Amino acid sequence: MKTTDQWNFIATWKMSLEGVRRASRVLGEGQSLERAVVEAVKTVEDEVAYCSVGYGGLPNRNGEVELDAAYMDGDTLKAGGVMAVRDIKNPVEVACRLSKYERNCFLAGEGAMTFARRHRFALRNMLTPEAAERFKTAKIEKDLLERQEAYDGHDTVCVIGRDAGGSMACGVSTSGLFLKHPGRVGDSPIIGSGFYADSGVGAAAATGVGEDIMRGCLSYAVVGRMACGCPVQEACENVLADHTAKLRRIGRSCGSMSVIAMDREGRVGAATNLELFPFAVGNMAGECHTVAAKQTDGRIEIFEPDEEEWKKYEVD
Amino acid sequence: MKTTDQWNFIATWKMSLEGVRRASRVLGEGQSLERAVVEAVKTVEDEVAYCSVGYGGLPNRNGEVELDAAYMDGDTLKAGGVMAVRDIKNPVEVACRLSKYERNCFLAGEGAMTFARRHRFALRNMLTPEAAERFKTAKIEKDLLERQEAYDGHDTVCVIGRDAGGSMACGVSTSGLFLKHPGRVGDSPIIGSGFYADSGVGAAAATGVGEDIMRGCLSYAVVGRMACGCPVQEACENVLADHTAKLRRIGRSCGSMSVIAMDREGRVGAATNLELFPFAVGNMAGECHTVAAKQTDGRIEIFEPDEEEWKKYEVD
Repeated sequence: MKTTDQWNFIATWKMSLEGVRRASRVLGEGQSLERAVVEAVKTVEDEVAYCSVGYGGLPNRNGEVELDAAYMDGDTLKAGGVMAVRDIKNPVEVACRLSKYERNCFLAGEGAMTFARRHRFALRNMLTPEAAERFKTAKIEKDLLERQEAYDGHDTVCVIGRDAGGSMACGVSTSGLFLKHPGRVGDSPIIGSGFYADSGVGAAAATGVGEDIMRGCLSYAVVGRMACGCPVQEACENVLADHTAKLRRIGRSCGSMSVIAMDREGRVGAATNLELFPFAVGNMAGECHTVAAKQTDGRIEIFEPDEEEWKKYEVD
Repeated sequence: MKTTDQWNFIATWKMSLEGVRRASRVLGEGQSLERAVVEAVKTVEDEVAYCSVGYGGLPNRNGEVELDAAYMDGDTLKAGGVMAVRDIKNPVEVACRLSKYERNCFLAGEGAMTFARRHRFALRNMLTPEAAERFKTAKIEKDLLERQEAYDGHDTVCVIGRDAGGSMACGVSTSGLFLKHPGRVGDSPIIGSGFYADSGVGAAAATGVGEDIMRGCLSYAVVGRMACGCPVQEACENVLADHTAKLRRIGRSCGSMSVIAMDREGRVGAATNLELFPFAVGNMAGECHTVAAKQTDGRIEIFEPDEEEWKKYEVD
């Protein structure tokens, strides 16, 4: 089962490239996969430029930054998560700590913040002046709240890693939909929807409109297909295509959804219903770099855009 | 697909029998499946005698009753849920309302309570004198918090229903583990873990130790097996057996876990790792009654205990 001496990472969006580089250095220094995945997610949480994750994340409709994060160890199936937490510098660190327990692994709101304070996790006012300004100028129309879309070009950070021994793990973090209802929990901290990891099979994670992702438990569904022998890229494409088709069949529109996955040998896959979904990959053999899943009429092509193409698609 | 003129219900534990009877009357009066399922769950929430659900539920380690609930419509895959809410008389009503929205369908803590108050859902102090007394006399040992078990004999109420037109729905409600960490979210409001319904395939729901149920996304897994053609009883047994075996293989003990399910034709199934797991069933042809899944060395037998046998197993 643990057959290669390679390690591998895959992570959502271009914004996670620095995180993947950091994860590679952490593993290179002989630290654990857990540390590498958590550090990768933290790199994105700490970067003020990304308005969909951690510091600099956009606020809910009360003007507060509420964050969701989760961590899962694919060797033990132990998972932890925090939901709708405020003023915690690195929610993924708290999620990772919670995954160590046998019980009380997923905590929401005040209870989660009490846990974080008691265990002396770093606190921080997560609302930046820029985010406060965007909140002030946003028009909160009632109708909009039924049509909220995920962020263009970057959304939830999801990192899946596999070490040379074949252990797998994943971590996710997000500030959720801009102007969301206070207390709203998206797919990210929901096991099976936002993430799932089983070292014996593979791992998957999702980004996009959480409510639509949750209706298909997309991450568990992708891992489930791999368990039945489906190759990782096919698993991503089939699960997303089937779910989108099902939502359409029952007369529902659907928001943006993208998935990344890795099988137990370290092969990666991705699928999206966006025109273009960039993601970062890294392995021991090559440089860390960004590639993209391009979608045309449901067909997915994975390619490495050149400078011109990135410019064409890039949002920020 | 919608082939019979029968309606069917299955619900967890003996405590839900009154709820199933109520659901049957509601459908008989020509009301909707949604109303029937919600009323069934409410019947258990309102009953003070059940210390694991709604009014009379046992408190967390701060002495507060925090409740989780969810509702899913199998026709539209729309789902809603509340997590870690206090002082709401019928959390399942709020969950059902949230399932109507396209976004912001799952709300935790204060944000969920704000939603409930704004929409004028009935409020109630959910801590009964009896529950306060049990909290006062409980020894909160640090070690215990890692070994918490689900309630003996009754735990989360899960109700799955199917109307004569083939529409399916499910509702769940719980106060979670006694002495849980404030803000703890179990499997119940987690789509794919505590519940899942797809009228084109079937529905499933789970009760027991949420953290262990979540590690296997048991409800989605059962529905997934049915989607692959596996009969409902086999799906329940195989999913639970595989998950238990996997947890053991990776050196983990596992808490109690039970699942109920219904296929799209209304046939029901159940499995458990307890010695005996009682559940209630109801259909148009027969009386509503309680049956049990009996487990011996992993093998499941579904039977109708006589008076003597119920007495032997009954906890309260």
